[in-house]
Amino acid sequence: MRTAVCERLGVEFPLFAFSHCRDVVAAVTNAGGFGVLGAVAYSPEQLDTELTWLDEQVGGRPYGVDVLVPGKVDDAALGGGHLMDAVPERHRDFVTHLMAKYRVSGAAQPMPVTADSFGRRVTASGATGLVDVALKHPIGLIASALGPPPPEMVAKAREAGVPVAALVGTVEHARRQVAAGADLIVAQGTEAGGHTGEISTMVLVPQVVDAVAPVPVLAAGGIASGRQMAAAMALGAQGVWCGSVWLTTEEAETAPAVKRKLLAASSLDTVRSRSRTGKPARQLKSAWTQEWDAAQESPGPLGMPLQMLLAEGAMARIGAAAEKGEPGALELANYFVGQVVGQLGQVKPARQVVYEMIAEFGEAVERLARLSE
Amino acid sequence: MRTAVCERLGVEFPLFAFSHCRDVVAAVTNAGGFGVLGAVAYSPEQLDTELTWLDEQVGGRPYGVDVLVPGKVDDAALGGGHLMDAVPERHRDFVTHLMAKYRVSGAAQPMPVTADSFGRRVTASGATGLVDVALKHPIGLIASALGPPPPEMVAKAREAGVPVAALVGTVEHARRQVAAGADLIVAQGTEAGGHTGEISTMVLVPQVVDAVAPVPVLAAGGIASGRQMAAAMALGAQGVWCGSVWLTTEEAETAPAVKRKLLAASSLDTVRSRSRTGKPARQLKSAWTQEWDAAQESPGPLGMPLQMLLAEGAMARIGAAAEKGEPGALELANYFVGQVVGQLGQVKPARQVVYEMIAEFGEAVERLARLSE
Repeated sequence: MRTAVCERLGVEFPLFAFSHCRDVVAAVTNAGGFGVLGAVAYSPEQLDTELTWLDEQVGGRPYGVDVLVPGKVDDAALGGGHLMDAVPERHRDFVTHLMAKYRVSGAAQPMPVTADSFGRRVTASGATGLVDVALKHPIGLIASALGPPPPEMVAKAREAGVPVAALVGTVEHARRQVAAGADLIVAQGTEAGGHTGEISTMVLVPQVVDAVAPVPVLAAGGIASGRQMAAAMALGAQGVWCGSVWLTTEEAETAPAVKRKLLAASSLDTVRSRSRTGKPARQLKSAWTQEWDAAQESPGPLGMPLQMLLAEGAMARIGAAAEKGEPGALELANYFVGQVVGQLGQVKPARQVVYEMIAEFGEAVERLARLSE
Repeated sequence: MRTAVCERLGVEFPLFAFSHCRDVVAAVTNAGGFGVLGAVAYSPEQLDTELTWLDEQVGGRPYGVDVLVPGKVDDAALGGGHLMDAVPERHRDFVTHLMAKYRVSGAAQPMPVTADSFGRRVTASGATGLVDVALKHPIGLIASALGPPPPEMVAKAREAGVPVAALVGTVEHARRQVAAGADLIVAQGTEAGGHTGEISTMVLVPQVVDAVAPVPVLAAGGIASGRQMAAAMALGAQGVWCGSVWLTTEEAETAPAVKRKLLAASSLDTVRSRSRTGKPARQLKSAWTQEWDAAQESPGPLGMPLQMLLAEGAMARIGAAAEKGEPGALELANYFVGQVVGQLGQVKPARQVVYEMIAEFGEAVERLARLSE
């Protein structure tokens, strides 16, 4: 396909696959799309290992790395101590209460040993450590999932000749990202999984395209088929950025119990909740989101990254119990996913998802062209 | 254009314009689209007058009528007395409190004399009275905006050879509507103005198209430009149903103060709230929605139609005060509108909106076709 984005990034088909799983990233890239590895779960050392593996798999085809930089998290305010010390007692108590109420087996979880460094990686300075590692590899794109890319990150990417992409949920954020040096904007609608704003893809994309032209825009949110990709391109996007659709692929490391919940869910079964990260993120509705967001005894979610630390610790225990088939844990278990979850009913190889999207995209474009004949 | 909907309904360009204003309906129909008059505000006698005027204006071109049939409103449960008697004291008191707090001039409003019959028209039996009137005119479509069309309505429309359209926000509702006899489904995303569900247009439309095929589907929600129309058609819709975009046209009877608020609003300035009708309806965020939805002293909205009666009575007074420029009334004033409100920055003739959408639609389709060359 011929869009400026295809030419700039050397990709055949402007389908960007965001995944935390290197196998998905490799499969999509090798099928003609553009895989982007979500790096937030990795330490710099782990990221280096993953990217070395990817370099071997993709044989020079383009792929990217995504880091999470929440603009408003102030490193200094987190203090010099352990981050977990900043989590109030009643928030820990509420987690203890949930574990008891839902009869989740396993020890009252000690915070994961990596929690502290994990929490710090979602700060501006933490993300920069990942960026340094990423830029040592032949990556084709570096993306910033929240907040404007820090000046240092932009400068380093520029020096390495790697374009910087930034995810946005409003026109104002798009303008701010371009001013901060973003080369590519991902306009993400509220229907997307993970951190999202309130404006739908259909409304947001044309406004962002017009606001930042000639900077190219990818569309995200609500896109898991060729028809949806064609719709996004009709809105003026130069490509699409998909996340949810990979969660039910063969390659995805999604926990089996969660994968079954995803396959069974309808598009009504997601909610935008602060209960997993501290910022509004779309995810599967579950007892976890309901308790945090609506229970009378809920203390309400903390901010980022503290809520993320608390939730990740709890979710590790919940996930293990869910895999044993414990009913309470299965009620609590969830994962970040967009409203397209209602379209995902079957496990497929990631490569097949790419090929089906390419084929359906072509059909949709031809059908549209015939309408005007 | 050639879609099954165009042929069945005899329309050149499958752009459906929902409006409470007959001038908009006439202008769109005469420009090659398909105007649909929202009938809920009219008594059967008034509707007859409006449709007679329309018949004269459109010279045989196709137009339609929309009635509001909330499936779950039980006529019998409303009792035989005046509907306003069923509004609890503390809800009336809250309105009185708001009027005082925002210093809205005018008398403590007596409920409008028409409130009772107005409330009853949004019941199944009430809607049927409007349908009888509508079917005496050469209308090309009758639409049911909430809930499945009552069997009597479908039978009468069938007999008159008039297709029935039904608005839905979920796949399940679409199936139910088709089972109830709907000939055309309007799949409406959460970004739409007025009564909406939670699923975005991008996600909802392809699912509904697949679920009800071969019944044709129009897309609604987030559509106010030719690019958005092309996107909707790429998703599989055979046409689009637009409401918000007409509110700022020259022909619209939108109150001037509200029109100014709409022109100034961004796509972040809407909210899905039960505060105007008793059911979740997207509208401009205002002090009215904030007070009902978030103030500690709010009793919470009533159901439909009682909240609608209460709100319409209050809004009549607020609107009059807002037109006088009273600051408190301007804070409270709002109207039903979708997220596309952020795209509406200029008053235009409705005809011009249609022509611009046709032109931009063609450009978007050509641009898409060139991508694959």
